[in-house]
Amino acid sequence: MMKPIKSALPLSLSHVEPLSGNQTGRLVARVIDHLETVLAGQTIQPGGRLPSERTVATDLHVSRNTVAAAYDELEERGLIRRMRGKGAFMCNPRDHGELFSWSGKVSPTAHLLDEPVLEMLARNCASDVPYPLSAGTPSLACFPHDMYKLAVNKVISEDFPAALAIAPTEGQNRLRNSIASWTGVEANRVMITSGAQEGIDLLARCLIAPGDIAIVEAPTYPGVLQCLRAAGARLVEWSTDWSLEELEQLVIRHRPKLIFTTPTYQNPTGRVMSITTREGLLDLARRYYIPLIEDDVYAKTYLDQRPGPPSLAKLDRHSQVIYVSTFSKMLAPGLRIGWIVAPKYMVKQLSLMKMRANLFTGGLNQLVLANLIDSGNFDRHLVNLRQQHAVLRNAAVSSAQQLVDGGLITFSRPAGGLYLWCKVVGRIDFESFLEKAAEIGVSVAPGQAFFATVPHSSFFRICFTALPETQLRKGIERLRGALRNVRETNHTHSHGPVLTSQMRSLRKQETLKGQPLSAFL
Amino acid sequence: MMKPIKSALPLSLSHVEPLSGNQTGRLVARVIDHLETVLAGQTIQPGGRLPSERTVATDLHVSRNTVAAAYDELEERGLIRRMRGKGAFMCNPRDHGELFSWSGKVSPTAHLLDEPVLEMLARNCASDVPYPLSAGTPSLACFPHDMYKLAVNKVISEDFPAALAIAPTEGQNRLRNSIASWTGVEANRVMITSGAQEGIDLLARCLIAPGDIAIVEAPTYPGVLQCLRAAGARLVEWSTDWSLEELEQLVIRHRPKLIFTTPTYQNPTGRVMSITTREGLLDLARRYYIPLIEDDVYAKTYLDQRPGPPSLAKLDRHSQVIYVSTFSKMLAPGLRIGWIVAPKYMVKQLSLMKMRANLFTGGLNQLVLANLIDSGNFDRHLVNLRQQHAVLRNAAVSSAQQLVDGGLITFSRPAGGLYLWCKVVGRIDFESFLEKAAEIGVSVAPGQAFFATVPHSSFFRICFTALPETQLRKGIERLRGALRNVRETNHTHSHGPVLTSQMRSLRKQETLKGQPLSAFL
Repeated sequence: MMKPIKSALPLSLSHVEPLSGNQTGRLVARVIDHLETVLAGQTIQPGGRLPSERTVATDLHVSRNTVAAAYDELEERGLIRRMRGKGAFMCNPRDHGELFSWSGKVSPTAHLLDEPVLEMLARNCASDVPYPLSAGTPSLACFPHDMYKLAVNKVISEDFPAALAIAPTEGQNRLRNSIASWTGVEANRVMITSGAQEGIDLLARCLIAPGDIAIVEAPTYPGVLQCLRAAGARLVEWSTDWSLEELEQLVIRHRPKLIFTTPTYQNPTGRVMSITTREGLLDLARRYYIPLIEDDVYAKTYLDQRPGPPSLAKLDRHSQVIYVSTFSKMLAPGLRIGWIVAPKYMVKQLSLMKMRANLFTGGLNQLVLANLIDSGNFDRHLVNLRQQHAVLRNAAVSSAQQLVDGGLITFSRPAGGLYLWCKVVGRIDFESFLEKAAEIGVSVAPGQAFFATVPHSSFFRICFTALPETQLRKGIERLRGALRNVRETNHTHSHGPVLTSQMRSLRKQETLKGQPLSAFL
Repeated sequence: MMKPIKSALPLSLSHVEPLSGNQTGRLVARVIDHLETVLAGQTIQPGGRLPSERTVATDLHVSRNTVAAAYDELEERGLIRRMRGKGAFMCNPRDHGELFSWSGKVSPTAHLLDEPVLEMLARNCASDVPYPLSAGTPSLACFPHDMYKLAVNKVISEDFPAALAIAPTEGQNRLRNSIASWTGVEANRVMITSGAQEGIDLLARCLIAPGDIAIVEAPTYPGVLQCLRAAGARLVEWSTDWSLEELEQLVIRHRPKLIFTTPTYQNPTGRVMSITTREGLLDLARRYYIPLIEDDVYAKTYLDQRPGPPSLAKLDRHSQVIYVSTFSKMLAPGLRIGWIVAPKYMVKQLSLMKMRANLFTGGLNQLVLANLIDSGNFDRHLVNLRQQHAVLRNAAVSSAQQLVDGGLITFSRPAGGLYLWCKVVGRIDFESFLEKAAEIGVSVAPGQAFFATVPHSSFFRICFTALPETQLRKGIERLRGALRNVRETNHTHSHGPVLTSQMRSLRKQETLKGQPLSAFL
């Protein structure tokens, strides 16, 4: 899609107010003319780098000050954005409808660039479809409504000042103590966050400097990819076969600043890391002094009456695991309460970061949760939740088995967590599949979103706990039509990643993705 | 405080496990020996830069690979931290008690460096003193307890699914609509945040790239200084005399990426920007295409039955103001509900950033607030709150007047907001004053925290709404003793900033401050 530079550069001065001074106006016009001439036939996408001021000055035989003044004018008008030490970048011309060019004011790293594939995914993942199977939420039908209501009223009557006042950034001591005794850790190593997502973001902001390398699982939770990328990390993938040989080679080659893992009911694969591998991973991390971040949000969602192996944090003897969890996957995501268990030094660091971000997490739900945990009501809820989830898992597995029998997908039966991770058999046009599914009222989480580098397009994730059983079955059954409909007759396509060229070029630029996380938490 | 390099470098290998390989061990030892020799007599503070690998290699007549391997080993052990393209930095040896050297894993920009002055301030601002006057909280005695309880139970009975499920990052539509009609803006320009602090942090992360310049008022809310610094901004101060000539010169000289202002009941000064200046500021920002961030969290806390001038956002005709507010200063900070009003394009950008940070804000308090606003109960609460606050303001003014009469301080009577901004008359040892005040049970917010560059030490801020009238009066009266006690007899001290040399060196390094925000919100 080669466009002439004139249309690629959204610089036409007719879009903005007349220039204030004639001389500046002539300069800007001259610089634009020049850019149009030298770049004729090339397209600078939003986010693309413009020629350096020095180059333009040399080419035009004018002083660098002259070019700098012209670039100043362009930047102030929001047409380009400069980054100290990195050059000038094109802005996104999307907001021409606005009176002020805000897109030009957004920092290049924060800039949402056009991603038609991801926007399409977002559209398809919207939860207003009749059969939303994309987002990861526990069964809200199991929510202990009456217990919660009683606890809320108890807090409002007895502890309300604590919920209303400025509170410690580390969290309400009541809840830190409850989680500490419930999980068997020291209370001053527990820090309350606004969901696990905040924990991950704080860790990324604390541990990653731009250009640092982080090792993530492939596939993994899209939210961690976004946080690490936003902190400037370069991501290296470790396959969820969890080969320690592979990991050691990655560690030696890349010297990562952290390893992020979800060893129990991994999202999205549902896999469980063996005890032997856990011990090997801890040993490897100890030998190379690499911090381990353990995402353990699914630990309590085991489905066959038997919990998974002990967490890395429990097995850790060298204080090098930071543990992240949340009530979102075992109670309700709307409560926005998660927690971190970390060495005291890191609790302090993370709290300083959280203070900047939002001061502290709201008190009411913290105190209510402390009440539910202390009274044993929360454990009783978990027993019920697991029973219901097992029923839903069985229903999903039997419905999905029909797709397997039809030769359409493969999957493994999960022993915990909320998901089926499905692999499409053969070649399909994945975008059309998602579109077709949306048309018939079903959303699934597209596999692409779960990979850091090469986004394989032959996977999708189903959440089996979001809907009642009948709806769940119907939703999965409907996928049969969508999958059949989009089978490619043309077998020349590669089986690998499907990306538009624009998306590929964006990945190359290591720009941030505007991926709608809430669609596939 | 010059220390020999041996103790300044926390590299003694006795602190960590024996080295894995002999050769590496010898290399590390050799590099450390070398550092000790060439740096003899110098002190590398935590955060300080080590010699480049190239320099060490040249000095030692070994290959750069050899030095790189040694530095690798040092970094993995958490003794130094390298930043891509910037060199190697000393780590904070603070956590020697931990089994794993976490301080060495924290990104240099996120690192909390020792700041004895600020730690002391934090200690003195702790709210467990009998007369906490430092933190900014509205009168919680005015909290409409019964209305809130009714509304909570109504939401739990009628709208609870919306509060439990995954919700839009922009906020609950119910609350966006309520705020929109209550304040007269379009609902799709309203975005809900976890307090104003989150709004400010999201704006900093969206609009600032490292090295960018931002203009802030002097003095201003410490929270905005921290967010902008964390995003990498270099801060330029605009005095709260609000001279447009001064501002225009700053804009021309520094080409800032944004201007942050609190034009109504400015924190901490309580000042109100005139309508003429507001219009001039908007015109200036329009002419130079600079985004304006308006912090308007005190607008509804006017005290003399007459609201202040219209907000910049209301006067804005060019869509270049982003408006930030919160319920923390007019209801309760523990609710953690604030909002932003921004062009739709920016609501999208800020939501993408918030998605990474914490997905969305909890639903319960959003729906409760929508209920309170729609029923008119919130406006009724505000009438009551302002009456109580006016009584407290009058009490504080009359108590503080006694300190004025005693020749100890000066201040201006505020027409809104929660604060008295006091200037000490003459020279005092400010640190001793804070310590003395804490000893007799009073905390105030130290003026230093409110300045971005030169931290003037002759100011302090009192919050007059945090305590009941009697306690408020007593707290202020107690300051008389503290102020008298620390008057300096030695007049050779300059009247300007008081900084320890370490603090000064930290500022020079442009490192982040670990300031305990919650002490003086």
